[in-house]
Amino acid sequence: MDSQTIGILGGGQLGRMIVEAAHRLNIKTIILENGSQAPAKQINALDPHVDGSFKDPKAIAELAAKCDILTVEIEHVDTDALIQVQKDTGVKIFPLPETIALIKDKYLQKEHLIKNNIAVAESVDVESTEAALQDIGSKFGYPYMLKSRTMAYDGRGNFVVKDKSYIPEALEVLADRPLYAEKWASFTKELAVMVVRAIDGTVYSYPTVETIHRDNICHTVYAPARVNDTIQKRAQILADNAVKSFPGAGIFGVEMFLLPDGELLINEIAPRPHNSGHYTIDACVTSQFEAHVRAITGLPMPKNFTCLSTASTNSIMLNVLGDSKPDGELELCRRALETPHASVYLYGKSTRPGRKMGHINIVSQSMVDCERRLAYIEGETDTVPNEKEQVSDNVVPGTSTRPLVGVIMGSDSDLPVMSLGCNILKQFGVPFEVTIVSAHRTPQRMAKYAADAPQRGLKCIIAGAGGAAHLPGMVAAMTPLPVVGVPVKGSTLDGVDSLHSIVQMPRGIPVATVAINNATNAALLAIRILGVFDSQWMSKMETYMNNMEDEVLEKAEKLENGGYEEYLSTYKK
Amino acid sequence: MDSQTIGILGGGQLGRMIVEAAHRLNIKTIILENGSQAPAKQINALDPHVDGSFKDPKAIAELAAKCDILTVEIEHVDTDALIQVQKDTGVKIFPLPETIALIKDKYLQKEHLIKNNIAVAESVDVESTEAALQDIGSKFGYPYMLKSRTMAYDGRGNFVVKDKSYIPEALEVLADRPLYAEKWASFTKELAVMVVRAIDGTVYSYPTVETIHRDNICHTVYAPARVNDTIQKRAQILADNAVKSFPGAGIFGVEMFLLPDGELLINEIAPRPHNSGHYTIDACVTSQFEAHVRAITGLPMPKNFTCLSTASTNSIMLNVLGDSKPDGELELCRRALETPHASVYLYGKSTRPGRKMGHINIVSQSMVDCERRLAYIEGETDTVPNEKEQVSDNVVPGTSTRPLVGVIMGSDSDLPVMSLGCNILKQFGVPFEVTIVSAHRTPQRMAKYAADAPQRGLKCIIAGAGGAAHLPGMVAAMTPLPVVGVPVKGSTLDGVDSLHSIVQMPRGIPVATVAINNATNAALLAIRILGVFDSQWMSKMETYMNNMEDEVLEKAEKLENGGYEEYLSTYKK
Repeated sequence: MDSQTIGILGGGQLGRMIVEAAHRLNIKTIILENGSQAPAKQINALDPHVDGSFKDPKAIAELAAKCDILTVEIEHVDTDALIQVQKDTGVKIFPLPETIALIKDKYLQKEHLIKNNIAVAESVDVESTEAALQDIGSKFGYPYMLKSRTMAYDGRGNFVVKDKSYIPEALEVLADRPLYAEKWASFTKELAVMVVRAIDGTVYSYPTVETIHRDNICHTVYAPARVNDTIQKRAQILADNAVKSFPGAGIFGVEMFLLPDGELLINEIAPRPHNSGHYTIDACVTSQFEAHVRAITGLPMPKNFTCLSTASTNSIMLNVLGDSKPDGELELCRRALETPHASVYLYGKSTRPGRKMGHINIVSQSMVDCERRLAYIEGETDTVPNEKEQVSDNVVPGTSTRPLVGVIMGSDSDLPVMSLGCNILKQFGVPFEVTIVSAHRTPQRMAKYAADAPQRGLKCIIAGAGGAAHLPGMVAAMTPLPVVGVPVKGSTLDGVDSLHSIVQMPRGIPVATVAINNATNAALLAIRILGVFDSQWMSKMETYMNNMEDEVLEKAEKLENGGYEEYLSTYKK
Repeated sequence: MDSQTIGILGGGQLGRMIVEAAHRLNIKTIILENGSQAPAKQINALDPHVDGSFKDPKAIAELAAKCDILTVEIEHVDTDALIQVQKDTGVKIFPLPETIALIKDKYLQKEHLIKNNIAVAESVDVESTEAALQDIGSKFGYPYMLKSRTMAYDGRGNFVVKDKSYIPEALEVLADRPLYAEKWASFTKELAVMVVRAIDGTVYSYPTVETIHRDNICHTVYAPARVNDTIQKRAQILADNAVKSFPGAGIFGVEMFLLPDGELLINEIAPRPHNSGHYTIDACVTSQFEAHVRAITGLPMPKNFTCLSTASTNSIMLNVLGDSKPDGELELCRRALETPHASVYLYGKSTRPGRKMGHINIVSQSMVDCERRLAYIEGETDTVPNEKEQVSDNVVPGTSTRPLVGVIMGSDSDLPVMSLGCNILKQFGVPFEVTIVSAHRTPQRMAKYAADAPQRGLKCIIAGAGGAAHLPGMVAAMTPLPVVGVPVKGSTLDGVDSLHSIVQMPRGIPVATVAINNATNAALLAIRILGVFDSQWMSKMETYMNNMEDEVLEKAEKLENGGYEEYLSTYKK
C-alpha cells in the first residue's frame, strides 16, 4: 500500500499490534527493542530488527538508517536523539519528537495544555522538600496528588497525600524524581478518547469510553462510556482540541476526569496507541493501530470517519494480567473463548504477576449483555450467555431468557383479554414478561416500571386497560419506548370509553392503539416493531402472514367445494 | 493459550491468515513452503520455517519433527507422505490425511458425498477419448462440464463441452489429467458455507453466503446470501451434513449450486479456510482462521456458536486481483481506505495480473449500503457513502439521504394534517419520504408500496386517511413493517368514522392507531420505534420529552407568577 518502511521504537504489545495492522496493508516495519523475542519482533520476519534500547542514540540512528518514518509505542524514548537523527538523516518522525518531549514530562504537558486553553486539573511544580509539600497542602487542601513528572504509568509515580502526616512517605516513595502536585479531582468517572491526527492536521476522534482501574491499573474499558450523549460529545471535543494543539501526525490517547457537576478535565495524554483503545480492534472498522499507521504514512483516512462499526455496537475490553500462579490467566482466556461475542488477544509475553499479558474484547448490541458475558469470563457465573439473547438486557424471573416485550394491565380482570397477546408472543418465541401495574392504584410502581424499561432491555410495552384507561398513556409519558395500548371492554359503554381514553392522547405522547380487546394485534404489532431491526422477527412475521393467507384460501376452497350450506353446518364460531 | 506447535503445509495467504489468528492466541506456527518470503513466513519470526515443497515427503517429515499438529492451507499436498509421517512420528494431522486425499480428487470427493446421501450434481468417471466424451454427451446432453479430478481451482481444470464439436478442444485443454464429467447444473446462484468441525465431532456452520465469479475467479462474496431464510438454513444443513461425513477436525469451505426450483447441490468442498470465508474476519467475532486454529488444537469453541457479530450485519468481500499494470490494484485499495466500513487485507505477494493480492471487506447494517460502498471502491461512483446514512437502503429523490419512514395519505386533502408529522420527522432529522397512495383509487400502487417497503429500507410507515379509512389497514395487511394509522377528521362524524375504520382491525393485522388528526404523535411513535434498536433516536426522544416537561414548567411558573388573568390575556390558542 505504501513503500515507506516504519521504524518503531519499542517492541511491546502496542508495537506488536501496530505491526499486525501494517502487515495487512503490506507496509514494512522494523522494531528497535532489546533482544530478539519482543512481542512486536515475534510477528515480523520481513527484515532484521534492531537489537538495542529505544533510549540509546546509537540504536535509534541505526533504526533510522533503515527506515523512512520513525514512530513510538512508548513515550519514554530519547527525544534529543530523535531530534538529532531527524536533522542528520531527514527521516520523518511521527508523533513529532517535540510533542513526545512535551508529553513525556507530565508537568510540561500540563503547562502546554493550559497555554492552549484545555481544561486540566490545577497543578504546580514542586520541590522535593517537606516545606514545599506542606505549602501545597495549604494551597490545595488535602488530599492532593503528588506525581512524578516523568516515567509514570499504570499508577506508578503517583502518590495520594491524604494529609500532612503522609508527606515523609510521599518523599520516600517518589525520591529522586522530579515532582509536581495536582489538586484533588474527586471525579465520578474516568473517560478516555482516542484521537488520530492526519498529516494535513485533520483530527478524527473515536467514541468516548469509560476506563475502570483496579489497583492503579486499567481493568476494563466500556465503549461507549455510560454517560449521556452530551458528555460523550463534549469529551470528544475536548480531546480533539487537545490533540489539535500538537503538530505532526499519529494517534493519541486522551484520558480525562468527569467531575460531579459534569465538568471534564484532562488527566493526561499518551502520544501513541493506548490501552483504552484496544476495543477498537473489534468494535470499530478501523482499529487505533491501523489509524496510526495510516496517519503517519499519509494513507487515506475513511472519509466521514468511521467510529463504531454499527450504531448499536457496545463493547467491554478486559485486560488479561499475569496471574499469581504462572499461566493462571489462561483460565480467563479459556472462558473468553467459550463466550460468544468475545475475542482473545495475547501478546506473546512470558507470564509475570500483574503484567499485561493480553486483552479480551466483548462486543454486543447492548452493554448489559456485554456485562453478562464479562461476568461469565471472570467466573462470577457459570451460565454462558446465549447467542440468541444478546439483544435484550433483562432476565425473566425464574427463566433464563430476558424479556423484549413487557405486557402490563391495570387489573387482573384484564388478563383474559391480555392473555391472547401473551399467547402470540409465546407462539413467536418472543421473550416477554407479564405483570399488573395500575395507573390509579400503584402510580409509583407505574412510574418506576416505565422509567426502568429501556435499561432493563425492554423494547416495547403493551399496556391494556379498561374504563378511564390511563395506563397506556401514562406509561408512554414516562418512557421513550413505543407503547401499544389495548382498550379493554368494560361492563358499560362497550369499550368505547377505553378506546377514546387510550387513543386520544395529546400531541407529544403517542400510544399505538389497537382495536378494543384485540391484544392479539397488540402482540403482533410489538413483533413488527422488533422486526424493524432484527430480521428474525420480520421473517417470522412474514411466515405468519403467509399462513393466515393459506388458512383463508383453505376455507375458501372448502366453501367453494362443499357449498355454503354444508360449510355453515360445520361452522364453529 | 496452547503449548502445541502447528505446522502448516503451504505459505500463501490462507496460511498467513492462520498464522495471524494463531499469534493472537500465543500459538506457535511453522510454515513449510519454498523460499523465505512466502506470505505466511513474512509474519512469523518465532521459529525457523522449513524451506521446501508441501509435496516433498522429506520436507513434510522435517516439518513434522518440529510440530505437534500439522494442517494444510491447500489440499494439493502429498497425502501419502502425511499418512507415513503420522505413522512414523505420531504427529496429529487435521484435517485427516485420508480426508484430504478424498477431497483433492474431485471425483472421489463426489463418490464419497453420494455414498453419504449428500446432494451433488450427477457425475461420471470418464476416459480421455473422443468416444467416451461423446457417450457422456448422449447420456447428459449438452452442454456438460468436463473436469479434471485433481489440481483444479479457480476455474482451471474445468471445460464446458457446449456440443460435440468442442470435444477435441476439451481433450487438448485437459490433456494428461484424470477426468470426470458432470451433468450441467443451470444454477441461479452459487452459495457457500464455512463449517468448522471440532475434535469431538461437533460441527458449527457460519452463515450461508453467495459467491459471484468473474472469469472463473471469485470476484465478490455477499454475506449473508441474498436468498430467503429457508434456503439459507437448508444450505447450512447440507453443508453441516457434508462436513459430518469427514472424521477429524478443522474448517471446510462448502460450495454449492442453487437451482431454479430451490434445490441445492454441492459443487465442491475445500478442507481448509476458503476465499468465501474471508468476510468472517470483519463480520464475525470468530474468523474462519481462528475457528480452524481452535478446532485443530482442541481449544474451546464459543458455546452456542457465534456467527455474524450482530443480527443486522451484512457484508461484501471483494477480491483484490493483480492489475494488468503493476500495483494498479492499489488504486482499488486506496479507494477502500477512503470508504467508511471497508477494511483492506493485503497478502505480501508480488503483483502479477489476475493474482489474488488481497481482499477488501465491507460491513454494514444493510446490503444495499454495502453495495453503495462497493460501487465507490470499484470506481463506479465518486460519491463516498456517508457514515450517517448506513442504516437505510433507499435514496429520497432529489436528496442524498435514504428514508427510514414513509408518510402516505389517501388524498392531498389529508396533507395539512399529515404535514404536522413531517415537521416532527424533519425536526428530529429522520430521513423520510411523503407521497399519496389511495387504497380505493390506486389499489395496485398501494400493494406495491407496501410490499416493496422493507426492501427499500423503510422501517415504519405512517398512513393517514379519512372517512372509510382503509389505507392504514390495507398497507398493514401487505407489509410486515409496523404501520401507524392517523384518522383524519372529515366533514361529517368528527373523525370517529376514520378512527374506528383504522383502529378496529381484525385479529392478525395490527395498525398502531393514534388520535384523530394527531400526525404529530404518529411521527413521534415512528421515532420511538426507530429508537428501539438505534440509540441515537432514543436519546433524541428523551431530549424531546425533557424539553416538553421544561416548557410546561415554564408555563406553570409564568401562570403562578403573573396570575391567571394576565396569563389568559396573552394566551395564544
